[in-house]
Amino acid sequence: MHKNLHKNSWFGIVCVGTMENEGQLHNIRHSLAHLLAIAVLKHDPKAKLGIGPVIENGFYYDFLLSRPLKESDLSAIEKNMKKLIGSKLDFTGREISKKEGEELFKDQPFKLELLEEFSKDNLKLTVYTTGTFTDLCRGGHVQNTSKINANGFKLERIAGAYWKSDQERKQLTRIYGLAFETKDELDGFLRAEEEAVKRDHKKLGRELDLFLIDEKVGRGLPMWTPRGTAVKFELEKFTRELERKYGYEHIATPYLGSEELYRTSGHLDHYSRNMYAPIDMDGDKFYLRPMACPHHIRMYQRKLWSYKELPVRYAEIADYNRYEKSGELMGMIRVRKFQLTDGHIFVTPEGLKEEFKKVCDMIVEGMGGLGLLDIVSYRFSLRDPKNTKKYYPDDNLWNHAEGLMKEALDELELPYVTALDEAAFYGPKLDVQAKNVHGKEDTLFTAQMDFLLPQKFEMEYVDANGEKKRPVMIHRSTIGCLERVFGFLIENYGGAFPLWLSPVQVVIIPISEKFISYGKEVLDKLRGAGIRGELDSQNETLGKRLRNNKMLKTPYIVIVGEQEAVSGKLTAESRDRGQLKDITPEQFMKDILEESRAKK
Amino acid sequence: MHKNLHKNSWFGIVCVGTMENEGQLHNIRHSLAHLLAIAVLKHDPKAKLGIGPVIENGFYYDFLLSRPLKESDLSAIEKNMKKLIGSKLDFTGREISKKEGEELFKDQPFKLELLEEFSKDNLKLTVYTTGTFTDLCRGGHVQNTSKINANGFKLERIAGAYWKSDQERKQLTRIYGLAFETKDELDGFLRAEEEAVKRDHKKLGRELDLFLIDEKVGRGLPMWTPRGTAVKFELEKFTRELERKYGYEHIATPYLGSEELYRTSGHLDHYSRNMYAPIDMDGDKFYLRPMACPHHIRMYQRKLWSYKELPVRYAEIADYNRYEKSGELMGMIRVRKFQLTDGHIFVTPEGLKEEFKKVCDMIVEGMGGLGLLDIVSYRFSLRDPKNTKKYYPDDNLWNHAEGLMKEALDELELPYVTALDEAAFYGPKLDVQAKNVHGKEDTLFTAQMDFLLPQKFEMEYVDANGEKKRPVMIHRSTIGCLERVFGFLIENYGGAFPLWLSPVQVVIIPISEKFISYGKEVLDKLRGAGIRGELDSQNETLGKRLRNNKMLKTPYIVIVGEQEAVSGKLTAESRDRGQLKDITPEQFMKDILEESRAKK
Repeated sequence: MHKNLHKNSWFGIVCVGTMENEGQLHNIRHSLAHLLAIAVLKHDPKAKLGIGPVIENGFYYDFLLSRPLKESDLSAIEKNMKKLIGSKLDFTGREISKKEGEELFKDQPFKLELLEEFSKDNLKLTVYTTGTFTDLCRGGHVQNTSKINANGFKLERIAGAYWKSDQERKQLTRIYGLAFETKDELDGFLRAEEEAVKRDHKKLGRELDLFLIDEKVGRGLPMWTPRGTAVKFELEKFTRELERKYGYEHIATPYLGSEELYRTSGHLDHYSRNMYAPIDMDGDKFYLRPMACPHHIRMYQRKLWSYKELPVRYAEIADYNRYEKSGELMGMIRVRKFQLTDGHIFVTPEGLKEEFKKVCDMIVEGMGGLGLLDIVSYRFSLRDPKNTKKYYPDDNLWNHAEGLMKEALDELELPYVTALDEAAFYGPKLDVQAKNVHGKEDTLFTAQMDFLLPQKFEMEYVDANGEKKRPVMIHRSTIGCLERVFGFLIENYGGAFPLWLSPVQVVIIPISEKFISYGKEVLDKLRGAGIRGELDSQNETLGKRLRNNKMLKTPYIVIVGEQEAVSGKLTAESRDRGQLKDITPEQFMKDILEESRAKK
Repeated sequence: MHKNLHKNSWFGIVCVGTMENEGQLHNIRHSLAHLLAIAVLKHDPKAKLGIGPVIENGFYYDFLLSRPLKESDLSAIEKNMKKLIGSKLDFTGREISKKEGEELFKDQPFKLELLEEFSKDNLKLTVYTTGTFTDLCRGGHVQNTSKINANGFKLERIAGAYWKSDQERKQLTRIYGLAFETKDELDGFLRAEEEAVKRDHKKLGRELDLFLIDEKVGRGLPMWTPRGTAVKFELEKFTRELERKYGYEHIATPYLGSEELYRTSGHLDHYSRNMYAPIDMDGDKFYLRPMACPHHIRMYQRKLWSYKELPVRYAEIADYNRYEKSGELMGMIRVRKFQLTDGHIFVTPEGLKEEFKKVCDMIVEGMGGLGLLDIVSYRFSLRDPKNTKKYYPDDNLWNHAEGLMKEALDELELPYVTALDEAAFYGPKLDVQAKNVHGKEDTLFTAQMDFLLPQKFEMEYVDANGEKKRPVMIHRSTIGCLERVFGFLIENYGGAFPLWLSPVQVVIIPISEKFISYGKEVLDKLRGAGIRGELDSQNETLGKRLRNNKMLKTPYIVIVGEQEAVSGKLTAESRDRGQLKDITPEQFMKDILEESRAKK
């Protein structure tokens, strides 16, 4: 989002650079920015105009106002804009001289500043006129306001913004608008946004008591509550079972590494901007680790391996710390300490491509198991050979690795996009990208080929001829970092996790105090079978307790009273399947365990 | 050990301070130190004598030699000592003047230095004579060498030592001797030592490939290998199951905490010598946490609790960092980063004693489950009211907490010793002490009552009258820190873990390549049933592979060949129960799962 705004910040009223007209919708949005300026000038004739670009889903315009503007004023401004649309005004453009511009915009200091800049850069100067209003603008408008659907747009909100994003310059008032070709599209977008807000993992995290961000413990250091930890344990189990299936061995290594370790690995040369300052321990200097590869390499090096034993695959849910600015911390998605479902594979060069394909298979199986396949996409990240500072300098290695990875991806027919200058400093990456509910894309995790670290650590294996050879390594994750994937899962399921991931799977509600002991009996049975159950015997009405547990999105609510205690059968309410009546506890448990195992 | 040496360092030849004659064994050892001096002077007449104290299990003497001494010279010296014993020499003491001493020891600069010191301190000066040898000495000898059993002692080894333990002074040669009243006792001690060396967890850790200490990763930061991690996962599972049984909820909190957090808790005032320097994160200061209590308190404080909901019990396998000097790091027992099976209970003051008793019950159940009851003992650690710097100053709180804890311990009839000045800064402790194979005692973990932190964090709950009250908290561990308990387990079992804790439970050895695929079939069955199995199809003889796996102390070795493939039955060798023949795979798996569940 931030990136998009940045790219477009000079677009709209003044269209510089390579930005192209993006069609009718773009023209509608751009035209609406002009109409907004007209309406605001009517509201505040002394307003000074900044810029008014098109953005994702709409437009904005910045103003230096002579009197305060409230959110409640927006509807009057919106009304005026609709009136302008109804007036069927033309947009007409023409080229002007600098002098003519200076006269036209003599009361608009920001426009004069832009005029000055564009002249200096020898840019063509154009203005567009709508009714009596003329703005400095490169164009990209509807021919006539009749092309704009008056019900397809909405002024959204007011925010502050500095002129030219410079905190030293004037603070302006920015008005954001949403705009689409039809009212249906606008309504659809608003509904989706409303849903996204409801699904926001920070909001649901609080409501469902899943995690806790406490400033006193520390910003960027979320804590998992009992309910969240239940999900965490399931994610860990899921990860480890998948890893065992694909032939990984589990190890456990510390979140600290010596200076020498990260000197050897090259992290201190190429990755230190993502690392925190070192800690002195009685004369030894240690870094909070940003990656565990050096630890796994040292684990490999504890013995001499034969080619017959390769690939060696190590997995660990590894603690990491990477540098994040305070301002960029966000819920479980951007944190200062996280646990990556990490792993490293040491393989012969001959076995590399096949092993990399297995890694891709595993990723797809993992994302499928979590139900996230719909929100992930794949990005093949290459180095930019021109960015010599970021990447280890060895053209042959890079070309070989990038070529091999491309072959593997193509053979698997994995749909991917390529991205320049997004590789790791030691090799090309496959990024697993995921979109959050607001449409923002983030990297969930990656898989990387690496010829460099084995060289730096002088790694070896013995080949069929008894000669020492250098293995290649693959860095990869199983389901990404637990914090981030948890955030995505919360949003993806809107907090209504599938049974196997639910913090509490079954809650038992006795209809009155008399049936608490029977409720406990049922609870013990469930827990004995490994089902996460709770008893809600709070001093509240049955209705209130039912509502509470529905709000918590508990998959099964079992109500026990006279009838159930006598018959020994259960009445349950399934979140997803409605009422279940007269079911034996044994059958109920069997069904639950089956549903849980199926991970549906 | 180090402490003992320190206490006795001026004992022996010069007995100052309050050291008392500790009986006949002490006199034998002290006398042997003199005989050692005589024998060394015979070997090297120019040798200068340092001191020769009695230590645990024997004695030593320090010399500045004029020619090198090798371990192989020790037997000749030992022979001479035996000859002196056979000569039935008397030990006779007398008081001397400083002047007489200066004449007697004119060729012994170290003795002259001591003479000077003792005179300055107005100590009585005494010498003891044996044959023609006279030493500056306070006494404590056998009357005659005939009281010494010539077969009851043994010169053990040579080491270097600085005069007065001062690195700036001369380096001397120290000869250690073991001494007992009888040959049987000496032999018994030697056998136990040999066994202890075999069981040393650092040695077994390497031999059985359980963990790895790699200087390049960092001193004091051990890594768990795949085999060690299998044990770690079992310990985690054991811990969490026990915690669930005792009503704990699991949470997960970060190994970092803000400066403000540890300022509030008082750790920065009272515990900072055990903490590392803080890390700056974009303007926020964080400490690697030495304890997780503040995190658990903040977790509790995320909502308002009713007295009906207390006790609230949180458990976490929590990452900790505590300051350790480089020189004191030791295997898995003393490390710089560890994982404590941690937990905190928040309870009403009225419920405190009963809850503390439950904690003790749980500790005993945990130690029993791990088979460690025989090596643990209990220590009730009190504050020293005079040590005002170490402890939070509130006599009433301390008296109440110490009284309540004593009542609980006495009611449980838990055998314990008391220890002054060993409490935590915020409250009295029950320490669970464990002896390692060398007899050295260490604290495995603790349970503590705490009235202070709830006060500092202004914790609350609502009582039956709707009034806000302050809870009390208990800090406690389930089985201690995983690293340390693993070290003790390795030594306790000499690496031959009970089945449920074994890194690999069953290894399958195909007698030849032809039966590898059948072996894999059996392996898949075992793994499918959740048994940790491996296939050993290395290119080695059957005998070699059997020996390897026996050395690894694998509980079950299954050999598959023609007979087994045809009959579908198995032949297994049990580490503890001998040969098992003609057993069906189903029966074998059933037996193994049962044995594993029984944790025997």
